[in-house]
Formats: sequence, structure tokens, C-alpha cells
Amino acid sequence: MNKENIFIREAEEKDIPEIISMIKELAKYEKLLHKVKISEENVKNVAFGNNKFVEILIAEFQQKVCGQVIFFKNFSTFVGKPGYYIEDLYVKPDYRGKGIGKTLLNEVIKRAKEKNFGRVEWAVLDWNVSAIEFYKNRGAFPLNEWIIFRLEEDKF
Amino acid sequence: MNKENIFIREAEEKDIPEIISMIKELAKYEKLLHKVKISEENVKNVAFGNNKFVEILIAEFQQKVCGQVIFFKNFSTFVGKPGYYIEDLYVKPDYRGKGIGKTLLNEVIKRAKEKNFGRVEWAVLDWNVSAIEFYKNRGAFPLNEWIIFRLEEDKF
Repeated sequence: MNKENIFIREAEEKDIPEIISMIKELAKYEKLLHKVKISEENVKNVAFGNNKFVEILIAEFQQKVCGQVIFFKNFSTFVGKPGYYIEDLYVKPDYRGKGIGKTLLNEVIKRAKEKNFGRVEWAVLDWNVSAIEFYKNRGAFPLNEWIIFRLEEDKF
Repeated sequence: MNKENIFIREAEEKDIPEIISMIKELAKYEKLLHKVKISEENVKNVAFGNNKFVEILIAEFQQKVCGQVIFFKNFSTFVGKPGYYIEDLYVKPDYRGKGIGKTLLNEVIKRAKEKNFGRVEWAVLDWNVSAIEFYKNRGAFPLNEWIIFRLEEDKF
């Protein structure tokens, strides 16, 4: 592994097709591909438009796009400070084991630290043992008592 | 119960002491009061300053503040649209059973619908059976397979 080969940069509009492709690859791995409806326009609106609030970082390995992290601000009423919520962290299968996921995660954490944020949070599927191990090794802990509830728009 | 007596309004800066007080009451109910560090300045920064991104609605019953909901935008890479994440939903003990919590929740859902958002989400403690029942009755479902991971700032 040579860290020198890993390069993290802000996503640009030209990356949108690749961003969607990686969102779908992650969804497929999570066995949730049938749930994905995102369009190029959706990504443009939330990450590049005037009302952008979603941040996307792209990982390159030897000049090739190999992963991404998609995140946005959240807020804790306990800590009283903003934090980051990571929606997607993905590394393409051929590029795993090179420290790319860790580099992407660390970049988000570094930005949280620079902004004096209070937390970084994300969700993981309970059967994704390798991801859970990876997150614990970085110092994160599971909120086992908490259950996420979701209301979808057909119930609005 | 008389719904006419329930009034929902945007929080104002003058509400900040009451907002913090209700955040602490909720934390106490969740047995997490020792975790609460939020200050008046924190609330001002995130909900009323130039960089505000947190929304707070106040419930009044017969002109008295009796509850609040604190929420902010999130984003789903599956749906491709923003949604709302509810950080706190709280009704003071003396005012429970009057439909105030439901009115607050419905107001957030109404706003999500108006903005064409994709989801409303929140987290609940697994022993809070009455809240879970309340949320299921409104059409929400638990994401039982997902575990929230948290990295706190001492690990940044």
C-alpha cells in the first residue's frame, strides 16, 4: 500500500454520473438497489446548486475515481454543536484494502475537527461485520439502544 | 381534548431559555441528562444566526409553552431528495395525552410534504414503548437492521 497514490478532492459536476454509479453500487452491496431513485438532477440540486447542503468528496487512486463519501451537517441538542452525518462511504471493490475508506473517513473527521463540530455519525447494516469492525477501530461506537424510525412520503 | 387550544408557532430568540429547559427535560426522561452541554449561544447560532440550519417549532396550549420539535434537513442517496431529521420531539408531562406531540409531528410532516421532501426520520430509544407505538400509528417504521455509529470529538 502506498498512501501517496490516494488523492481526495471535492466532487465536481462532471463527477455526477460516477457519483450515481457509486451510490448504486453501494445500494447493491446493501441489497437495497431496488430502493434507489436518485437522478443526476437530484445530485446537482443538493450538492452543486444555490441551495447545496450536501458535501461529496471523491477518492482517486492512481488518477482513477475509486470511492466517495457523501455527508451533510446535523445537530445534537445534547452537545449543542453541529456535526457531520455520513450518508454514504464507498470504495469500489477492486480498490479495497488500500486504506482508501479510512482516508475518506479521516478527511470528514478532519473537517469536523476544523469546524469545531461535536460529532460525526453514520448508520451501518447490522450484518456488515467488516464495516462495524473498521468503525470501531477508528474510535466510533454503536448506539445499540437507539432505533431509527422512517416515515416515507406516501405517508405524509 | 380541544385541538383549538393547541397552537404551533416558529420559535423566537426569546424562547431560548425555555428551549434549553425542554431539551434538558427530554434528556432527563431519556436518562441522558449528564450528556447535555448545550448553551443559549449554541441555540442562537444554529437556529437564529446567519448560518442557521436548525428549525424549532414551539407548541402552546392555552397560551402556555408546552412542547417543541427541533429538526433539520437531511439527504437520502436512495430517494435523491432532502428530508427532515427530527432531533427532539418533546411535550411537557402535564400536557401529555392532548394530541400535542402528534400536532408537532404532523406540522413537520406537512412542511416536508410542501417542500416535496422524500422522508422524515428520527431515532427513538428501544425501551420507549409508548413513543414507538405512537410513531408506528402515524405510519412510520423502524429500521431494525441499521445501527447508528457515533464518533465523538475526543476521537477526532
